[in-house]
Amino acid sequence: MKLLENRILKDGRVAGKDILRVDTFINHQVDPELMQKCAKDFASHFKGKGITKVVTIESSGISPAVFTALEMGLQLVILKKQPSKVLNDDLYQTMITSFTKGTNYELTLSKEVISENDHVLIIDDFLANGEAVTGAVRLLRMAHATVAGVGVLIEKAFQPGCDKIMDAGFEVYALARIGDMSKDEIKFI
Amino acid sequence: MKLLENRILKDGRVAGKDILRVDTFINHQVDPELMQKCAKDFASHFKGKGITKVVTIESSGISPAVFTALEMGLQLVILKKQPSKVLNDDLYQTMITSFTKGTNYELTLSKEVISENDHVLIIDDFLANGEAVTGAVRLLRMAHATVAGVGVLIEKAFQPGCDKIMDAGFEVYALARIGDMSKDEIKFI
Repeated sequence: MKLLENRILKDGRVAGKDILRVDTFINHQVDPELMQKCAKDFASHFKGKGITKVVTIESSGISPAVFTALEMGLQLVILKKQPSKVLNDDLYQTMITSFTKGTNYELTLSKEVISENDHVLIIDDFLANGEAVTGAVRLLRMAHATVAGVGVLIEKAFQPGCDKIMDAGFEVYALARIGDMSKDEIKFI
Repeated sequence: MKLLENRILKDGRVAGKDILRVDTFINHQVDPELMQKCAKDFASHFKGKGITKVVTIESSGISPAVFTALEMGLQLVILKKQPSKVLNDDLYQTMITSFTKGTNYELTLSKEVISENDHVLIIDDFLANGEAVTGAVRLLRMAHATVAGVGVLIEKAFQPGCDKIMDAGFEVYALARIGDMSKDEIKFI
């Protein structure tokens, strides 16, 4: 998506060999018009695939995901991060290890908002090592729900997340695919 | 706002004397159409007040806030929660103690996304004890930005948050004001 690529070139900042900062338009400050346009692209791409719910991971994916859910006329489910295991029979939970941040957390999903009849579109801001998305897939599998595909704003194609998810049999649709940024310069695929 | 009140009566659940669970339409699962309608109400109420930015607190306020920012043609800034103090000259930060959850965290705001010329509308999901909103006000004051008002989906008027914020001189606009729920029954003001 040219609009997002151009915005990344204008306002994104490469910070170290594999960190891209998009704090002024996606993560810390959010440009709602840009998010709405990205959402329209996701909704149009995944149209007609029998999707029943949009799912995202707390919290940077919420803005693009809530606009996508609105466009598709669906509810959004936000998978919640907890610092430690919660004792609750009404929850599915799975441990996520973030290599980027060097932290662990429990991702949780309440049985109340998912069912085995759900066919889910996962939306997130970044796809890098894929820990969060593969955790989301594990949670949805516990609920016997199925995954229709994964939509991300930015894929860092030089990291293994996308391959991992495609190897598991899911479609990944990324609006901007970065092939290389090792020389402080962002190159899209 | 009748629409939100009716939804709270239909899908909200009183859990203990001062906890209202809205997990199926605001917090865990989000109804984007309802959020968009709430946002239109906020935007119409705060129209013409010279607002330059919408600010919310990670993460339950993001959905209503991003729709409000879109309606008002503004950028949204999400104040980020950090488990501990970050050493960074480019950040404003303040400690928040949540009485409800018995936890502490640092709320942070990057200097890059706020200026002394900003006149801010704060949007959040709940106003109860007011710790998060008063923390947001402290951060904005550090940046010499001004606060135009506070919009919340649900005010628990039997808790002290709203009075605290109004005593500090700010307008609070709540779409649903709960006066009492001590007998498992929700009574609006």
